[in-house]
Amino acid sequence: MFSVTILGNNSAVPAYERFPTSQLVSFNGDKFLIDCGEGTQMQLMKYKIRYSRISHIFISHLHGDHYFGLIGLINSFGLLNRQQDLHVYGPSPLKKIIELQLNVASTRLPFELQIHTIDTPGLLVDNEEIKISCFPTDHRIECFGFLFQEKALPRKLTTQHSAPRSYAYCADTRYNEQLLPYVAEANLLYHESTYLDDQHEKAALRFHATAKQAANFAKKASVKRLLLGHFSSQYESIHEFEEEARTIFPASENALQGVTYLV
Amino acid sequence: MFSVTILGNNSAVPAYERFPTSQLVSFNGDKFLIDCGEGTQMQLMKYKIRYSRISHIFISHLHGDHYFGLIGLINSFGLLNRQQDLHVYGPSPLKKIIELQLNVASTRLPFELQIHTIDTPGLLVDNEEIKISCFPTDHRIECFGFLFQEKALPRKLTTQHSAPRSYAYCADTRYNEQLLPYVAEANLLYHESTYLDDQHEKAALRFHATAKQAANFAKKASVKRLLLGHFSSQYESIHEFEEEARTIFPASENALQGVTYLV
Repeated sequence: MFSVTILGNNSAVPAYERFPTSQLVSFNGDKFLIDCGEGTQMQLMKYKIRYSRISHIFISHLHGDHYFGLIGLINSFGLLNRQQDLHVYGPSPLKKIIELQLNVASTRLPFELQIHTIDTPGLLVDNEEIKISCFPTDHRIECFGFLFQEKALPRKLTTQHSAPRSYAYCADTRYNEQLLPYVAEANLLYHESTYLDDQHEKAALRFHATAKQAANFAKKASVKRLLLGHFSSQYESIHEFEEEARTIFPASENALQGVTYLV
Repeated sequence: MFSVTILGNNSAVPAYERFPTSQLVSFNGDKFLIDCGEGTQMQLMKYKIRYSRISHIFISHLHGDHYFGLIGLINSFGLLNRQQDLHVYGPSPLKKIIELQLNVASTRLPFELQIHTIDTPGLLVDNEEIKISCFPTDHRIECFGFLFQEKALPRKLTTQHSAPRSYAYCADTRYNEQLLPYVAEANLLYHESTYLDDQHEKAALRFHATAKQAANFAKKASVKRLLLGHFSSQYESIHEFEEEARTIFPASENALQGVTYLV
């Protein structure tokens, strides 16, 4: 089992019951969280996800819609008497922000919280089954994407699923072909698409992408399937995003909240 | 029009779709927010409240369930191009926490944000129509309650509503009769009731109150009506809270999300 469950698919200001960005990656028994916008813990509860199992949280960048829910989730883990270590990865001032908020409330967590700073592309997690790495994207502030790569099983254990699968998360980014090598041939690619093509100028100015750009990127990266998300609050309906993308890359889908996508 | 709309009525960890603490006080055309737990902006949207009208936000204390939603709300005000000044009142490190998070994202707010530190009981707002003051409660960390007092109209303008009304918000607190003078004879009192009476020992240890204690407090304070809230996540059903309180103080009600209570 290797899948991604969407917890929030909206950009910046939440709207139309679309929450800010957060995704849960499940890999066999392990759970990993990517980004943690405000309300992520409520979404985890709503979708009845056993979130105590989350062992690692990856924060792409420090725009609020990608991390304002992190302190609340950590705090709740403490109140629920979590024992297991929690590893958080994110850009540099994240550790200071979280520790300041824990300190002012004299919070003593019953588990070990390790906040790791990411500042260069590289390997974050590497165990017998999976490799997780980060790569820089092209955004207004320092921002990282994440690549989850299943490891090949020893030949004697191979099954029909023997080709190692991968999930690439492109966070917030402008269309930028320099990112292609990081995500090439992924089974599933998440690429942001804040706007539709008729707003490509606004997208570029704001360091965001359009659905059409995401589709072009997916095609050039030779990925198998594309997930679109980070929709702007200006759109009440989002069905045009996948329609626009499919004209270029047919295996495109909107990332819908509460839905689990197999990698 | 003088009313309180409940946005969140749960304590600590959100549960059963009960959000952490936040309340909106409406007074004639003005809107004031008391506490701002995670997800407050989503609740404001859900209940279709024109939240751009909020001019002042009062944070009782720096336990996360009372303020983790503040940075997200401020950020959204910025993205929505708010122009009106926003005044925030709260205990001392709040200003540092908010400014740090705005700075790491290079956020430039299009409005004037003034974060005022409260550290002693006193008057916070005083205009022609209303007076808002704060008073210390008895909690594990520095914590304030808030009192909203309508001003008497000049005699020639009096109507049937001429007796000035008041709303007292007792934040998080243990049962403590020293608070009685601050809230005496309020038209509406909100007193926390995290637990039922059978857990009064746990309540005291954790600097919280029970429904019975809230009712006794309301009775001794000679208030007209009591609102109960800050329910522990251990309770799926909350109907026993108002039942327990009514045995002592009949004009008791649970604070329900999305419901507006007249003062």
